[in-house]
Amino acid sequence: MGEVRFIGIVEETRDEKAKIRIYPEFKSGLKGIDGFSHIIVLYWIHLRDTEKDRSTLLVYPRRHKVNIETGVFACRSPSRPNPIGLCVVKLLEVKDDSIIVKGLDAIEGSPIVDIKPYIPAIDAVLDARIPKWLTSSTNSENDRQ
Amino acid sequence: MGEVRFIGIVEETRDEKAKIRIYPEFKSGLKGIDGFSHIIVLYWIHLRDTEKDRSTLLVYPRRHKVNIETGVFACRSPSRPNPIGLCVVKLLEVKDDSIIVKGLDAIEGSPIVDIKPYIPAIDAVLDARIPKWLTSSTNSENDRQ
Repeated sequence: MGEVRFIGIVEETRDEKAKIRIYPEFKSGLKGIDGFSHIIVLYWIHLRDTEKDRSTLLVYPRRHKVNIETGVFACRSPSRPNPIGLCVVKLLEVKDDSIIVKGLDAIEGSPIVDIKPYIPAIDAVLDARIPKWLTSSTNSENDRQ
Repeated sequence: MGEVRFIGIVEETRDEKAKIRIYPEFKSGLKGIDGFSHIIVLYWIHLRDTEKDRSTLLVYPRRHKVNIETGVFACRSPSRPNPIGLCVVKLLEVKDDSIIVKGLDAIEGSPIVDIKPYIPAIDAVLDARIPKWLTSSTNSENDRQ
């Protein structure tokens, strides 16, 4: 087992924007982040940090036209062995210990686990293949960036 | 603080390929993963799970032409408050409890924290901006996919 330390918190969400506050002791880790247009946010899905959710391995993903039983490692279910959410977001503003982002799917109060810069050369795979059952559901998610 | 449970291990790496074995109790979470060409692997950078590495907030990233002091949240340094590595890899094969991937930057013995499907509509930002100091160093990383 590993120990996760929370480095910050989702302090506020409004419309599509979210304000992430990084705790003072981790603030210097943000140096240089303003050079990136997008970042990857790893957050703790704290409301799913329950034994029931963490032992869930098969789900019926919502928002899909066809309901197919799917493994949690084959979808973005918030119920999974480790309640870690991953979201690619647009970085709008960095000021002191806070960063404003667009498109974060975490809720207010979610602890932040890590922030990584988004590097297209290693993170962007435009032609990655997805299953047909997913194809019909990703249009709305497209709007997030 | 959160508790991370390891769901598998990097069992073997050879050339650019890696074999990830998912522990039996988590195996059913893989159902449907073969519909995706790429996955996101979160792994525990176990060799950096030390107090020294976890308290590192500023680094001089290697493999860059210009050495600039950078916050760990603005680069992919393995030394960071939570030793979680993130890598987008090509999924080559799924058989029973093992998956073969291409391009994983973890080493043999690294515990696996999570596996998520790569969904271009939300994960691919082709025109994301990166700082100039990084531009010169990403060519080699391009080969990984």
